[in-house]
Amino acid sequence: MRLLRIFNKKVKFSSIRYYSVVRQGFEYVNEDDVNYFKSVLGERNVITDEEELAIVNTDWLKTMKGSSGVLLQPSCPSEVSKVLSYCNSRRLAVVPQGGNTGLVGGSVPIFDEIVLSTKRLNKILSLDPVTGILSCESGCILEALDNKAAEYDLMMPLDLGAKGSCHIGGNVATNAGGIRLLRYGNLHGSILGLEAVLANGERLDMMTTNKKDNTGYDLKHLFVGSEGTLGIITKVAVQCAQRPNSFHVAFLGLESFENVLKTVQSAKQSLNEILSSCEFMDDESMECVTKNLGLRLPIQRHPFYMLLETSGSSSYHDEEKLNDFLEKSFNSGVILDGTLTGEPSKIKDMWALRERIAEGLLRDGYCYKYDVSVPLSKFYDLVTDMRERLGSSVVRCCGYGHLGDGNLHLNLTGEIFDPDVFALIEPYVYERVGDWKGSISAEHGLGYKKRNYIHLSKSQSAISLMQQLKSLLDPNGILNPYKVLPSFK
Amino acid sequence: MRLLRIFNKKVKFSSIRYYSVVRQGFEYVNEDDVNYFKSVLGERNVITDEEELAIVNTDWLKTMKGSSGVLLQPSCPSEVSKVLSYCNSRRLAVVPQGGNTGLVGGSVPIFDEIVLSTKRLNKILSLDPVTGILSCESGCILEALDNKAAEYDLMMPLDLGAKGSCHIGGNVATNAGGIRLLRYGNLHGSILGLEAVLANGERLDMMTTNKKDNTGYDLKHLFVGSEGTLGIITKVAVQCAQRPNSFHVAFLGLESFENVLKTVQSAKQSLNEILSSCEFMDDESMECVTKNLGLRLPIQRHPFYMLLETSGSSSYHDEEKLNDFLEKSFNSGVILDGTLTGEPSKIKDMWALRERIAEGLLRDGYCYKYDVSVPLSKFYDLVTDMRERLGSSVVRCCGYGHLGDGNLHLNLTGEIFDPDVFALIEPYVYERVGDWKGSISAEHGLGYKKRNYIHLSKSQSAISLMQQLKSLLDPNGILNPYKVLPSFK
Repeated sequence: MRLLRIFNKKVKFSSIRYYSVVRQGFEYVNEDDVNYFKSVLGERNVITDEEELAIVNTDWLKTMKGSSGVLLQPSCPSEVSKVLSYCNSRRLAVVPQGGNTGLVGGSVPIFDEIVLSTKRLNKILSLDPVTGILSCESGCILEALDNKAAEYDLMMPLDLGAKGSCHIGGNVATNAGGIRLLRYGNLHGSILGLEAVLANGERLDMMTTNKKDNTGYDLKHLFVGSEGTLGIITKVAVQCAQRPNSFHVAFLGLESFENVLKTVQSAKQSLNEILSSCEFMDDESMECVTKNLGLRLPIQRHPFYMLLETSGSSSYHDEEKLNDFLEKSFNSGVILDGTLTGEPSKIKDMWALRERIAEGLLRDGYCYKYDVSVPLSKFYDLVTDMRERLGSSVVRCCGYGHLGDGNLHLNLTGEIFDPDVFALIEPYVYERVGDWKGSISAEHGLGYKKRNYIHLSKSQSAISLMQQLKSLLDPNGILNPYKVLPSFK
Repeated sequence: MRLLRIFNKKVKFSSIRYYSVVRQGFEYVNEDDVNYFKSVLGERNVITDEEELAIVNTDWLKTMKGSSGVLLQPSCPSEVSKVLSYCNSRRLAVVPQGGNTGLVGGSVPIFDEIVLSTKRLNKILSLDPVTGILSCESGCILEALDNKAAEYDLMMPLDLGAKGSCHIGGNVATNAGGIRLLRYGNLHGSILGLEAVLANGERLDMMTTNKKDNTGYDLKHLFVGSEGTLGIITKVAVQCAQRPNSFHVAFLGLESFENVLKTVQSAKQSLNEILSSCEFMDDESMECVTKNLGLRLPIQRHPFYMLLETSGSSSYHDEEKLNDFLEKSFNSGVILDGTLTGEPSKIKDMWALRERIAEGLLRDGYCYKYDVSVPLSKFYDLVTDMRERLGSSVVRCCGYGHLGDGNLHLNLTGEIFDPDVFALIEPYVYERVGDWKGSISAEHGLGYKKRNYIHLSKSQSAISLMQQLKSLLDPNGILNPYKVLPSFK
């Protein structure tokens, strides 16, 4: 029995049962294995150096630390295939890792699983300027792809804080959301094709650059959001969006959550096709970034804030629509204060207020992070409820997120990790979300940290079918063990 | 061995091997079975009347005729569950049927399969005006749902010619495309939740009204586009789109296909967020609707035509964008002629030119229909190639379709079905599409007619996994047999 180390602060982590786990009966990597890997990948792509391993053994939040002794860096799908085929026959466990920017412990080893990095699978394969379809290997960095797309007036259909380091393969494997989902939908809609290498090394070719293809079961969706437990994604084809010429951001102050909801609806109606983000922040979130990061609010303090982004093909038209909308909202008293900009540097500043909250929160010490979907009518109740429940035992309890998609980021901070506070939060927070028929993970995935709460968002019949699919595709269970599926049957 | 009857014209159908099929070893429905169904569904929902059966035994195109002796009309998911559980234990084959508007023989029995109609599963369960999420039973008619959505300024994210009779469950089961896909994406993106009843009667609950939910494998996608072979969809939750206030249609005449492609790209760039359809018709298609249906073209005759639709929140802005775009296109000589309207009745007339082509073609006698995705650079080559190949052996060879999505409808007509002509078309047309890495079915599905060509668009590894999934979910193979998966292993 091994317990997860919470090690970004010196804390003795003792007995939170949800984090306990038993190593499954995999083989241990030996010298022969390492030599085989070197023969396939070349000496320098089989890394056993402790310092380099420390990085890939640790998650981005620094809340988890595995003890893998080998990092593999294949450079093409056929190398991935050879490695997995070998690992499967030897019963060696493997954790695939992209940019390692996940928040639920999905991309780091729990024990000594081999880390298979996609970083060298970084070729762009094609980009059609007319159809806007881009195909590439899975280790391409999201921002690099977006820059490439920009050369053709195109844009990746997703954008998120980690874009400078996350890999498209990881984005797909976790069905990453982000700030453009409201407009462009999730990756199940925009990923057209995939190649995944199965546990036995078989290359499952589901690549296509056709936007429409109704020939048989659309298997790629099994891999979108399966967090590397069914196969390792090696190639993707993405439908890019047309890049807008014009961006505007409105930063609004509101008095009540009721008015926030009114504004969501009226913004959707009035701004319709140009609305590209509809974000929400409470005052505690803004207090955090102003106090901890020294950022400045562009308007007076208010209990609630919204950030609306529009993007379109005519700056003049978009501004006119936004002005009309804001005027109506002010006149009706729904919005108390607000500022609108089309200037790139000011847009960046306003977005920073929203995007840097996570960074600001970590400055408090330790951050308990929750990413949930809840019905809009209950959206903020979860925050006030937790605030009451935890009182002064936390430094901060705040809510922000992708309101337009019903996605709340509930964050609680303390100076250090406190098991007693943790026990007050979990499973309570998930159970409340479950009671409201929300999702206990809107966009971050289940990974290691949330897997045992899956039953709160998925039916028993669905979980059981997931387990059957896992057995079908990875009978030895070597792919990303201890993740996604619950530890109980 | 039984051969498909082509019976809309008196034709002796002899030896086209692709349509031959052997009845699998299912049991035959007997009196006890009928009595059991009556005990579950009530006397009048178990239909054995020959006239009523003739309708459900026949596909919309009247190219296929099954010989089912029983039509079941359950009124709720639990009745579907009871019926399937019974059929599975008795090894009785079942074909689910929605509006029966499919074009590939997917929704009619091939032999004596029981027809299970979803028409009484027609309750709307919820509609949230703020999130725009609608949940309903699977037998709701698409147009009825769209009308309901309209009451809240919302719109169904798909629209197709059959909207007045097709069921949302059938739309989902076939991943139906249509004229709004360019803007709102396919159903994998907009279906949020599902309930499906599996072959053994188990109700697989994948319903959710959360827009975002990353908790485990997203199983619903297995059922989207699986054409009723993995389960019978009983409930759906759909993300509606905001309903635009303003619609405009431009009808354009062009001299070359090269200019058509230039116009696709410039329309996407200039009209970006307001472009909602980008359709293509060749002159033969337009000759067909003018001659066979008496419709009138709004512009002079040209070799190629495009229909562009925009929709947005401001009529004034949209018109300005469209005028700018059209002016530029005329000035550069890319477009030879065109007309633009925002008047509903004129919009309807222009859309009729595109939407009534299928109807017009049937007036020639018999229509050989192909719905393929091809790279845009080859898009029209397929039409000219077939025209050369078939010469005067067909009445008409024309191409039209959802150009913005790379989706060509290639249609050939004759006075009657001619096996020799058919043999010249198939498998040739599919093989060409396969050579170009297109899709042999862009939006219609494989059903019965195309299943044996699946290998031209899907890899062997993918087909083999599909077969494993079918065995896992429907081990007795009772659900919609002879469809989707090839008859060979």
